Amino acid sequence: MLQKGLLIIVSGPSGAGKGTICKELISRDDSIIVSVSATTRKPRTGEVDGISYHFLTKDRFEALIGENGFLEHACVYDNYYGTPKDFVIEHITAGRNVLLEIDIQGALQVKKKYPEGVFIFVLPPSMKTLKSRIEGRGSETPESLNKRLSSAYSEIELIKNYDYFIVNDTVCHATDLLQAIITAEKCRVDADIEDIVRKFKEEN
Amino acid sequence: MLQKGLLIIVSGPSGAGKGTICKELISRDDSIIVSVSATTRKPRTGEVDGISYHFLTKDRFEALIGENGFLEHACVYDNYYGTPKDFVIEHITAGRNVLLEIDIQGALQVKKKYPEGVFIFVLPPSMKTLKSRIEGRGSETPESLNKRLSSAYSEIELIKNYDYFIVNDTVCHATDLLQAIITAEKCRVDADIEDIVRKFKEEN
Repeated sequence: MLQKGLLIIVSGPSGAGKGTICKELISRDDSIIVSVSATTRKPRTGEVDGISYHFLTKDRFEALIGENGFLEHACVYDNYYGTPKDFVIEHITAGRNVLLEIDIQGALQVKKKYPEGVFIFVLPPSMKTLKSRIEGRGSETPESLNKRLSSAYSEIELIKNYDYFIVNDTVCHATDLLQAIITAEKCRVDADIEDIVRKFKEEN
Repeated sequence: MLQKGLLIIVSGPSGAGKGTICKELISRDDSIIVSVSATTRKPRTGEVDGISYHFLTKDRFEALIGENGFLEHACVYDNYYGTPKDFVIEHITAGRNVLLEIDIQGALQVKKKYPEGVFIFVLPPSMKTLKSRIEGRGSETPESLNKRLSSAYSEIELIKNYDYFIVNDTVCHATDLLQAIITAEKCRVDADIEDIVRKFKEEN
């Protein structure tokens, strides 16, 4: 019963903890493939091409945009970032689950191109926690902190575009929920079901 | 964040093992409420009214049918069987998850009255296993065995009306899947999500 793999999109406001949950998931389940972003920015020390990012020239990136080669892309401070489509589609077709950790604007772009993905919104346990998490990074000025918080407020409204939400109270519990969602989605009756039923009957 | 409870419908062909999975689920999770059927047949030794069944007179049962008091009902060998609606709705409204283990025809009736239920189809690992399970009961004649098997063949086509399918390879694994589905469904973004977002923002 070979099923197509899932594209699992884990998204949410900055500070909700989506990165930490994804790291924990991967450490628990090494069958999950992580989508590697492409970028035009220069590699930093220690970054490895194809692992940290796919480092592309601006010309190559723009050519790929023209060929509809990205599930989503954005330009941030004069550098492009994007999710190459071929990599994701190849693995999904081979029955593997692909994880994409991405901001909300990116997730909404992916939804347009791949609506059958599993869209999961990570909520902080409270806005107070979100504030203290962002403050804890120590990298924010009062202005940028306020900007992030007001973004989070408006971004949370976009949860209605998602399939699932996870409240990130503890990393362990939130990852349990993420794993349950993936397990459940593999049990979904979807377009593949007629194949499954046919094979099931043939085997007997 | 009080959410409505789930109505979890576990269904499948006779011999797929839905009863065993449901018993295992309840032994693991005592927060789940089991829906008790109503019937007009006489209690057998050891059966307790309100636990084994709600034992009703024929007049009372038919009056309830007239009041749209059942999520589903059927007449088998001159006795009525049915799922009283009020019990299920009361618990769900109070945020509890209600489990309904039921045959396929019953599940399809429930779907018409409560489409927001979580409909789960239990498949045997193979038709061969299904056959040996039914034979193992020792209660079938060759004719009734063949009848059950051909019913199972045609009933499996009805899986497309369900939300999820579970292959019952082992009771332990199948129950793990059932628990994951319930956990995931509690994370679903649905009609309640605006309440959740509003409360989330108010709390801060």
